[in-house]
Amino acid sequence: MSDQVADQENKIHDLVIIGAGPAGLAAGIYSGRGGLEPVLLDMMGGGGQVNIIDKVENYPGVIDLETGAELADVMRRQAESFGAGITFDQVEKIEATEELVTLTCSSSTYRARAVLVASGASHRPLKVPGEGRLMGRGVSVCATCDGAFFKGQSVAVVGGGDAAVMEAVYLSRIVGHVTIIHRRDQLRAEKLLQDRIFAAQNVDFAWNSAVEEILGDKEVTGVRIKDVETGESRVLEVAAVFVFVGVVPNSGFLQGVVELDEFGFVKTDMNMQTSHPRIYAAGDLRAGSVRQIGTAVGDGINATVHIQEMLNASIPSRQHQTVS
Amino acid sequence: MSDQVADQENKIHDLVIIGAGPAGLAAGIYSGRGGLEPVLLDMMGGGGQVNIIDKVENYPGVIDLETGAELADVMRRQAESFGAGITFDQVEKIEATEELVTLTCSSSTYRARAVLVASGASHRPLKVPGEGRLMGRGVSVCATCDGAFFKGQSVAVVGGGDAAVMEAVYLSRIVGHVTIIHRRDQLRAEKLLQDRIFAAQNVDFAWNSAVEEILGDKEVTGVRIKDVETGESRVLEVAAVFVFVGVVPNSGFLQGVVELDEFGFVKTDMNMQTSHPRIYAAGDLRAGSVRQIGTAVGDGINATVHIQEMLNASIPSRQHQTVS
Repeated sequence: MSDQVADQENKIHDLVIIGAGPAGLAAGIYSGRGGLEPVLLDMMGGGGQVNIIDKVENYPGVIDLETGAELADVMRRQAESFGAGITFDQVEKIEATEELVTLTCSSSTYRARAVLVASGASHRPLKVPGEGRLMGRGVSVCATCDGAFFKGQSVAVVGGGDAAVMEAVYLSRIVGHVTIIHRRDQLRAEKLLQDRIFAAQNVDFAWNSAVEEILGDKEVTGVRIKDVETGESRVLEVAAVFVFVGVVPNSGFLQGVVELDEFGFVKTDMNMQTSHPRIYAAGDLRAGSVRQIGTAVGDGINATVHIQEMLNASIPSRQHQTVS
Repeated sequence: MSDQVADQENKIHDLVIIGAGPAGLAAGIYSGRGGLEPVLLDMMGGGGQVNIIDKVENYPGVIDLETGAELADVMRRQAESFGAGITFDQVEKIEATEELVTLTCSSSTYRARAVLVASGASHRPLKVPGEGRLMGRGVSVCATCDGAFFKGQSVAVVGGGDAAVMEAVYLSRIVGHVTIIHRRDQLRAEKLLQDRIFAAQNVDFAWNSAVEEILGDKEVTGVRIKDVETGESRVLEVAAVFVFVGVVPNSGFLQGVVELDEFGFVKTDMNMQTSHPRIYAAGDLRAGSVRQIGTAVGDGINATVHIQEMLNASIPSRQHQTVS
């Protein structure tokens, strides 16, 4: 073990932030400015799911950035400027006592008085050809983000649950036509959402259908689907494919540490505190999150302000950093 | 009554947003994009308290704007681009039934299926000479926003409650010296916060002191205070005066309509829904808000997504806007 690693592992940090998407970067900015010298852990370059967004139109205050990746870059540079640069490491295990949280990571071990979990959620992919290549070029996992780019055009929505139908209702008001592609012969979404989508005049359904391939060279031009009963394939000509076949919170390492909901999302109170008083959660993996950049940022700041209050209030022994 | 006013008053809007600060503008962006054709009411040009911030450094994603007013302007233009321009009107009374909310305003009356209250909170002013003139030029109501501009310098904090002491603790880690100016001979803040501030080596106190005037030509150079017992005045040379003598939510028109906390802040659940199912609240006037631009934006988006779900789910009679 190098001296540097040993020093790090001997230190008790005020705050470790897990994940450098918008929630984690917002927390980095606030806790960095607040003098907490946070450790910000991420295995990628930061920005999280923002990187896959083609063009961000709905993040308030930002109109001049071209892509999601550029917005992520600005947030990362802000966090860095306040001392919250990204440490490349991945959490494997968390252990928490009343006074201390210990994070065992792939490269090092961190001990902290507070931990903010902002590791996000992953969209469950279709795992078909074209999906990855055309992501952000017509393949989308966010109707609210990208729907407005397809005004008047035909699009497909894949899925039959609440999220898929809710997003299809949203899209039906904006685009020309929506085809919902669903593996079964009926929707799983709640009845009232079904009422709404069946009342829409510009929506039709490809029942019992599975996506085989998303088509297009530089951008989506269609989707090939297969009838799972007859085995027949056909191509729908669409300008976009919105995939809502589930979201998976990146919370595996929190099992047994804090309370999760039935889908693995982290339960918090309104101050973003989990069932463990030293562990907070923010952003897409928080139960009830509407999974937008702006709400992740809000969560991250909200959590950080309350973490600062918690640290100020609960640890009289914490060394006060004087400037004089 | 003009035909235009009569038309407006006969219409049932999907959503009326009260207040065009960051929370209201974020809601305008999202609900405009979502096809709700929101009415966004404000008596000023929009932006709310953001306009008084000298330089915004802690709003994630924004580094190139000079002033708070510029950030407010970008958000306003975004909202306008999605059809959510500001209507200049002021709410005087709200009446809500199970199905409908009616807002009596100074110029017109609005009926809506959902209302988002984002009218913010006002910092209680000292009401002394120099305060208004030097606001944003050394006079601040937000240590988190402005503290970093006074690294190594001497500043004053006015107030003795939790907010004042919490902000003084924050400032003491960043600036050179803090003088807390308080009208009484002891702090009102909770004990643990007091422990922290008394442990700081770069903080002193002007007890039994009232601010008479904030001094400076183009920026703050000092503050004249008066000992309320001896009547003697003296000048403290400081580069900034942070005023925390209370915050007042702009919620008077909500009395008896939705549940407020003891200070008049609006109680909501985690989806920003108040005690009335068609009235939501977002931003600084929400009970528990940490009153940052980023959290107001998050609140506004969070509220809007849930308002859209509520409208989609609860009103089967709502006309579906087809595009075909």
